[in-house]
Amino acid sequence: MKYFDDINVGDRIALGTHTFTAEDIKAFARQYDPQPFHMDETAAAQSHFGALCASGWHTIAAWMNLRVQYGKREDAERAARGEVIARLGPSPGFRELKWIKPVYVGDTISYASEVVEKRVTRSRPGWGIIFAKNTGTNQKGELVMSFIGSGFVERRPGAA
Amino acid sequence: MKYFDDINVGDRIALGTHTFTAEDIKAFARQYDPQPFHMDETAAAQSHFGALCASGWHTIAAWMNLRVQYGKREDAERAARGEVIARLGPSPGFRELKWIKPVYVGDTISYASEVVEKRVTRSRPGWGIIFAKNTGTNQKGELVMSFIGSGFVERRPGAA
Repeated sequence: MKYFDDINVGDRIALGTHTFTAEDIKAFARQYDPQPFHMDETAAAQSHFGALCASGWHTIAAWMNLRVQYGKREDAERAARGEVIARLGPSPGFRELKWIKPVYVGDTISYASEVVEKRVTRSRPGWGIIFAKNTGTNQKGELVMSFIGSGFVERRPGAA
Repeated sequence: MKYFDDINVGDRIALGTHTFTAEDIKAFARQYDPQPFHMDETAAAQSHFGALCASGWHTIAAWMNLRVQYGKREDAERAARGEVIARLGPSPGFRELKWIKPVYVGDTISYASEVVEKRVTRSRPGWGIIFAKNTGTNQKGELVMSFIGSGFVERRPGAA
């Protein structure tokens, strides 16, 4: 992680892709969102979605996984260059989550994250809060989901 | 599901509870949020959380599961009474998700949902949209998370 002070509004990262298989979709749904259109092809065909599709929460869980993996790669690269790794604090939450299009079996979603706001908070000296707009786009170029996430990031020592 | 027209602002339902075990927390984290404080007790003890705790997304996935189970029970009861079951459409998204306190191993979270707004939309005749504030409260009575969810619900035939 970069220090809060080295992160700029407009910074954009490509997080990678996830392809949703039927198995994958059903496994998530069985545990966390057992609705027929996420679990069974026949039921899904008769639903408003028209075919088996992923739980909206699954489309975000896949984002989360890629975001964490990205952070681990970034930290390993910083370590390899001998740079300090800033700490990432907790996330207070997110806003404006939109599920725009269904994610069907075989869809490959490309995830990206763009910094839209940064703010220093009095409540947590030595830390700042970063807001990023996160998006998922399918192989046809259609936006399928977006939300604005947030997280505390450590400030450069002496920056405050 | 009740028809949109039979749902009122202020309607509140208790969805049940989920107790987060270490196994449960790690299994979710391995797949969807592989950060050290969700996967390993020792690493978690050294983190800002101080102990192993659930991914924020896991605390919502548990809500989703209970919400779906509640809907299935409600529909079965309506069917048993010979009542019509209204259709629940897709959710366009969520807003104002707040992770307020960590959820630690052994915590039992009680989930509830309260209708805060209802609205007819021109874009989808025969349907209305319901907004509900969803909350999770731990065994000490502390709010751990909340968000405002939304979903389309079928209108009573002839109500529009």
